[in-house]
Amino acid sequence: MRIELNRSSQVPLARQIYRALSDRILSGYFAKGTRLPSVRQLTRMLQVSPVTVSHALDLLEADKLITRVQGKGTFVYEAGEVEVKKEVSNSPLQFPDYLHRSQAKHYSEKPVAINFSLSAVAADLLPTRELAESLRHLAQYYPEVLAQYGEIQGDLELRQALSSYLMNEQIAVSPQEILVTNGSQQGIDLVARSFIGPGDVVVTEEPTYAAAIDVFRSRGATILSVPMDEEGMRIDRLTALTDEVTPKLIYTVPSFQSPTGKVMSLRRRKQLLGLAEDLNCLVLEDDPWSEIYYDETPPPHIKSMDHSGHVIYLKGLSKMLSPGCRIGFLIASVSILNRLITAKTNADLGNPLLNQKVILPIFQSRQITPLLKQLRAALKQRRDLAIKLLKQHAPQGVRWIIPRGGFNLWLTLPPQANTIELLDEAERHHLTFLPGSACYPNEVEWNHLRISFSQVSEEQLRTGLVELCSAIASYLAAAGSRKGTTPLF
Amino acid sequence: MRIELNRSSQVPLARQIYRALSDRILSGYFAKGTRLPSVRQLTRMLQVSPVTVSHALDLLEADKLITRVQGKGTFVYEAGEVEVKKEVSNSPLQFPDYLHRSQAKHYSEKPVAINFSLSAVAADLLPTRELAESLRHLAQYYPEVLAQYGEIQGDLELRQALSSYLMNEQIAVSPQEILVTNGSQQGIDLVARSFIGPGDVVVTEEPTYAAAIDVFRSRGATILSVPMDEEGMRIDRLTALTDEVTPKLIYTVPSFQSPTGKVMSLRRRKQLLGLAEDLNCLVLEDDPWSEIYYDETPPPHIKSMDHSGHVIYLKGLSKMLSPGCRIGFLIASVSILNRLITAKTNADLGNPLLNQKVILPIFQSRQITPLLKQLRAALKQRRDLAIKLLKQHAPQGVRWIIPRGGFNLWLTLPPQANTIELLDEAERHHLTFLPGSACYPNEVEWNHLRISFSQVSEEQLRTGLVELCSAIASYLAAAGSRKGTTPLF
Repeated sequence: MRIELNRSSQVPLARQIYRALSDRILSGYFAKGTRLPSVRQLTRMLQVSPVTVSHALDLLEADKLITRVQGKGTFVYEAGEVEVKKEVSNSPLQFPDYLHRSQAKHYSEKPVAINFSLSAVAADLLPTRELAESLRHLAQYYPEVLAQYGEIQGDLELRQALSSYLMNEQIAVSPQEILVTNGSQQGIDLVARSFIGPGDVVVTEEPTYAAAIDVFRSRGATILSVPMDEEGMRIDRLTALTDEVTPKLIYTVPSFQSPTGKVMSLRRRKQLLGLAEDLNCLVLEDDPWSEIYYDETPPPHIKSMDHSGHVIYLKGLSKMLSPGCRIGFLIASVSILNRLITAKTNADLGNPLLNQKVILPIFQSRQITPLLKQLRAALKQRRDLAIKLLKQHAPQGVRWIIPRGGFNLWLTLPPQANTIELLDEAERHHLTFLPGSACYPNEVEWNHLRISFSQVSEEQLRTGLVELCSAIASYLAAAGSRKGTTPLF
Repeated sequence: MRIELNRSSQVPLARQIYRALSDRILSGYFAKGTRLPSVRQLTRMLQVSPVTVSHALDLLEADKLITRVQGKGTFVYEAGEVEVKKEVSNSPLQFPDYLHRSQAKHYSEKPVAINFSLSAVAADLLPTRELAESLRHLAQYYPEVLAQYGEIQGDLELRQALSSYLMNEQIAVSPQEILVTNGSQQGIDLVARSFIGPGDVVVTEEPTYAAAIDVFRSRGATILSVPMDEEGMRIDRLTALTDEVTPKLIYTVPSFQSPTGKVMSLRRRKQLLGLAEDLNCLVLEDDPWSEIYYDETPPPHIKSMDHSGHVIYLKGLSKMLSPGCRIGFLIASVSILNRLITAKTNADLGNPLLNQKVILPIFQSRQITPLLKQLRAALKQRRDLAIKLLKQHAPQGVRWIIPRGGFNLWLTLPPQANTIELLDEAERHHLTFLPGSACYPNEVEWNHLRISFSQVSEEQLRTGLVELCSAIASYLAAAGSRKGTTPLF
């Protein structure tokens, strides 16, 4: 275990230690029942005072993440009995082992009957037939694509087609300002490795996309998060925060935000852009969802209003076209994009050419427009069904936000609930979801969960939501009765 | 321009500054004729003494990378007249702009008649027909692959097939010990971002793979390079070096090393492994070429002899199968692989599934074995032709290593030659190659070049090598005559 502390950070050391340990516990890297190193060992390992270590352990204990057993040591908390399994030993090679809310992704890979965790679209709703036709065409007329390296920046034909597509989105860019990436995730990572270093401040919405937290943390950044209201990120809170510190980057998902589904209003988008210009900091506008609207189109992209080059726009195509091809792209002004291309060069020397050529005809032929229309119509039905079912079956005290786009439903349970505990109950009902705690970079709220209604069939959605509501009801009842003796929190 | 200095490094600051500036000049990031910041500006910018800056500039001047013009400033050197083009201005946003020998890759993208720079295989020699058949099959029977995310670690079926394939290579690993990557480049990058941080020492062969230098540098590592002889990396020199410092990682390409084509002997492989065990450091065994042997199979992989888990094995499939799919993989013991999977999660959440399913049947059916046999036979003819042509046409004073595998030919010109200058002459002859200087992490040798004989047609190989020899002859003659008045170096 190697914990990297940032001694010049504004975040107190005890909180940094707390966070490092809680990340490892929440990610499952430290299994339940694992014995933690002693205060003395941690003091020596981290070169901090015993008081600091104790304070960090107090915070973990308050969160019920650890339990101290007199004369035996400190153990990762397990509901019920504490079982002594194994000690955390230092790896002989002393590797860093920074870990990782995105291991929450593993929830997506669990073999369960109904997967509400994976934020993806069912194959029959995506334009899979059109893409298969494109595969067939390549095999027949252009097999050399298999034997060629693509350009590091991305296939020029694809960048040209994307540039035309973006005109409809009110973003005027040349193919030279586009960098093709291996999904949105790589886009976030390339921005972080180009512009974020230890001690830099990154601002996100709270809650935010879990995997982005990991990327910024892995660069040694301090993440400050800003709450949202019905207009999205609260710019008043952001402004107050920037009186104290100057962020290097503001990360936002303005349209159908992940995980909450909220939309940033036009007014807030303008305010955010103005603030970024004043502070001379970058905005990373992550936009996987804006085409998937159900009621009305979201406000214009922040990038479409950016004349000073402060906004990097990131688009992933996995949600609307093809996760099997995993293509995304970044748009930035040339001086910024050159740094991103350098990072891409180091990272992998460019996306595979095959996948870029597979999706190319969908954009070149402008088929994308009617295909998206179909997708919206199909997903709107799912969304409406999901909301109807929740209204019918959700136990008292459960609230949700009706998403006006995207595929995510953000559910809130009563404050004393912990959706990581609920997950055990849900798995007994053969279903899974994303515990909301993965989405908080700082003070964690435990009583939320995210479900995606897009990946399951309509039939599964029906059964699954009824089961989920029943799991929530049993969990809340059990938690309520336990509360009588030992309060949960 | 933001230069990051490592003040705790054993490398003197002046040399770090020299290296940072020479990287920018050699990569073309600072164009010829660009004015550098003044000594006073650099002193302030880098927080070092004027003496240190002057010493760094002396080193650059000695290398003929810059020239000082009285009363005007310091300029990037240009053969012939110095033209004042533009000042290097600080970007308003102060981004890091660490740059990049791998921009040498851009040589590969130049539109020339004959490309000897790109280390790839011509489409007609790769099993493109078999892969196209696989594409057709997926389109017909398994189009859902386009709509599915793959596992982060890589498709399980592919990992199982690779595990069987590796048994033939005397590497016994389970699918759980394999991580699929986006080409070898990502493999190097994932290892670097998992295990290398500022101030860590990485050892490489000298010369080495240019893009690896960039990756390790971008992590803030100090690269120490060890010369080779006919048995590969000189372990006596490595041992002497490790008396002084303990490397975190030793990066080696033991079979048909890039760029030289050299092979590390069995004895040296064992010595290297023993040393890594003694030092408790990691070995990254990069193996893009071992299947492409012409005379005899290379000695066993270092990984096949590793019982202590110190070796990470990296295989790229682009050279032998399909650059259009860009798939590589890492093999490591589980505790190390877990860290690499974490890095892969942050980097891109996994390779696209499509490409993995495209190459799968070639391994599952064991077609790979006869296909590789065909590839070796075809490339051996090219190699033999290339050597024959060089013998006939190379000007006096040009030497080369006959590669016993791989596709690279390493040519050495007389010591006073500079192959970056030769490149201009070569481009007038409509051909390009990789200047050897890109491959030296420390003291640069300027008089080498690498050509790849695998990507051009047999006809192009004939014409191209005759033209290259003629370009070398003209360049050496011109350099010799200039030498009479102003010595080149």
